[in-house]
Amino acid sequence: MTDIPSPLALAQGLIRCPSVTPDEGGALAYLAGILGLAGFAVERPVFSEAGTPDVENLYARIGGAGPCLLLAGHTDVVPPGDAAAWRHDPFGGTLEGAELHGRGAVDMKGGIACMVAAVLGFLRRRGPDFGGSVAFLITGDEEGPALNGTVKVLAWARARGERFDHALLGEPTNPDRLGETIKIGRRGSLTATLTVHGTQGHVAYPHRAENPIPGLLRLAQALLAEPLDAGTAHFDASNLEFTTMDVGNPASNVIPAEARATFNIRFNDRWSPGTLAEELHRRLAAGAGNAVRYTLDVRPTNAVAFLTEPDAFVHRVADAVEAETGLRPALSTTGGTSDARFIKEACPVIEFGLVGRTMHQVDERVAVSDLDRLAAIYGRVLDAYFPADAAPQKRA
Amino acid sequence: MTDIPSPLALAQGLIRCPSVTPDEGGALAYLAGILGLAGFAVERPVFSEAGTPDVENLYARIGGAGPCLLLAGHTDVVPPGDAAAWRHDPFGGTLEGAELHGRGAVDMKGGIACMVAAVLGFLRRRGPDFGGSVAFLITGDEEGPALNGTVKVLAWARARGERFDHALLGEPTNPDRLGETIKIGRRGSLTATLTVHGTQGHVAYPHRAENPIPGLLRLAQALLAEPLDAGTAHFDASNLEFTTMDVGNPASNVIPAEARATFNIRFNDRWSPGTLAEELHRRLAAGAGNAVRYTLDVRPTNAVAFLTEPDAFVHRVADAVEAETGLRPALSTTGGTSDARFIKEACPVIEFGLVGRTMHQVDERVAVSDLDRLAAIYGRVLDAYFPADAAPQKRA
Ligand SMILES: [Zn+2]
Ligand SMILES: [Zn+2]
Repeated sequence: MTDIPSPLALAQGLIRCPSVTPDEGGALAYLAGILGLAGFAVERPVFSEAGTPDVENLYARIGGAGPCLLLAGHTDVVPPGDAAAWRHDPFGGTLEGAELHGRGAVDMKGGIACMVAAVLGFLRRRGPDFGGSVAFLITGDEEGPALNGTVKVLAWARARGERFDHALLGEPTNPDRLGETIKIGRRGSLTATLTVHGTQGHVAYPHRAENPIPGLLRLAQALLAEPLDAGTAHFDASNLEFTTMDVGNPASNVIPAEARATFNIRFNDRWSPGTLAEELHRRLAAGAGNAVRYTLDVRPTNAVAFLTEPDAFVHRVADAVEAETGLRPALSTTGGTSDARFIKEACPVIEFGLVGRTMHQVDERVAVSDLDRLAAIYGRVLDAYFPADAAPQKRA
Repeated sequence: MTDIPSPLALAQGLIRCPSVTPDEGGALAYLAGILGLAGFAVERPVFSEAGTPDVENLYARIGGAGPCLLLAGHTDVVPPGDAAAWRHDPFGGTLEGAELHGRGAVDMKGGIACMVAAVLGFLRRRGPDFGGSVAFLITGDEEGPALNGTVKVLAWARARGERFDHALLGEPTNPDRLGETIKIGRRGSLTATLTVHGTQGHVAYPHRAENPIPGLLRLAQALLAEPLDAGTAHFDASNLEFTTMDVGNPASNVIPAEARATFNIRFNDRWSPGTLAEELHRRLAAGAGNAVRYTLDVRPTNAVAFLTEPDAFVHRVADAVEAETGLRPALSTTGGTSDARFIKEACPVIEFGLVGRTMHQVDERVAVSDLDRLAAIYGRVLDAYFPADAAPQKRA
């Protein structure tokens, strides 16, 4: 490889691959070509799960003995919706002024482009004997069910004896400006449906019926009455949101037989899904007394809360961010879940990427200057992770 | 007319007419024939209303000057549902042992049969110059929208100069045994839908959204917190029942934009629909403070609460019931609405009929002995209302 492509050129190449989950769309093939040329050993594991489409993934590694830094991400994107509502073709990779437009511009083809550009530059500067190894884990199943993606690539890699020391996931982490936020953990997520059972009847004869709606109000209040916690060292307070409440009774003279509500909890490291479910049952039992008949259906979840303690690696990344942006990034655990919940089983993982403001929206776009600065940040991380003055190690 | 038909024969004749609302099914024609033969002037007014089917009704009057007693009812019936689930053809009028089976057996072809049998007997005993007049108002639109029935027949009669002194409506009023209950009034009914407005968002970022569900819980509690009243002299306490509560959000990671609940209030003579709506608005405003954005949509209602004060007429009917059944009937205002809410605008009205236990159900049926005793009760009411020793009045 003679010329190192710019982050912009790489991002355009990826955006022009229509890789809406579960379609690969050529995006992984594009990366495989570039990384292979750069000397990576590239694998393309495909995984299956009954009831879901097969999904392609990419795993690539370069380097020898010493620490291994995993760079992780996804090339699949959410659908563009009504393409006619976009200023530019969502898969066109159009440059308008200083901004690159397209689905995945920030979530997260742009981030992957910056990682690849940074690694190519690093390899140009340091050669293949840089005192460790770098691996890419790029999935095509992050925006979908996430069953045939990162979680299975990690198991597959573990079975091959691959080990990682730290991981950097390139999801968009900054709300408004590049440099604001590094994510060092994620809250867990638990969803449950509460059903209150009553007895149907006519509104004119309430004593012959049992209206489940007051019972549901009572149990909902019991769940919401006290905060789940006050937050922990690195986490906000856990939060419960009711997402729906449904009876579906069209007859205004009929007392219904059942009322249901679903809620989602984003929880911190004070809880596991198991201890949280116990707390829910405790609150419901206290709220119900002998007066309300109910069932609670807690959906299985693999979205547990996790934290990467702010250690030297975290500070090294923060230093790189500050050097390029002038901002000292906050170490955050807010926001939604990501594949970091799987990676943290393999090694400490943090997330830093582009500005997420337009992600999942019409006219998703990224400033070209952000692409350049993020590639420079990742380059600084590589330089700091594999210091040139460390004793070079023999390749395996 | 030489033979007076039995209540059973009349009830069978009516049940065999398939008069599911809005079909007349021959039931009114059957009554017109019998009443005409007995000397009644019979009219068959048909009424229309945009958006609803035309409905046939019957109005018949006999007698001269003096008080006029109105006997009221409906020949339309609710659908039988799955006819195969019935022990007998729902329109067969089958006698099984001591019970007559069929849709309308108690609600209220049976009651009309008893009224007709009683009037025929009374006329046989007393002749046409009995010192007053008797009118029948039988509608075919009680179980339906009730727009082309009693309310319009009354307006039509009023325009013709017809006046009534008292009315007896033959709806099934007894929960378990003939003689238990006379209805001297009815509660009103008011339905309203409460919508709480929020702002949609992602559950992971609740501070950027505004969940309407806690607001709905709060307002629902504000509505339910205090009883509307403690009851009045002849009425139970007014009662509010939530009948549905709906959000319809399928996504467990999305905070919804809106939440809705519908409730129905059965209210006593402490309230009019207007004062009740004011009270609802007052409670909601207090519960909402500045924290909840909501709208309340109160449906127009003509189901106002009314009471026929227990006067000499009421006691006369109660005496007749006691004489035939040995039970002193309770004077009640409980239960659902009926056409009495319209008739009370024309004259004092009370309701007494058969045992309602099987009404609107599969295998609706009536004891033949109840038909005979109810006809005897109505006969006693006629005798007491038009005493034989009163000075006979000239016919008009
Ligand atoms: Zn993403
Ligand atoms: Zn009825």
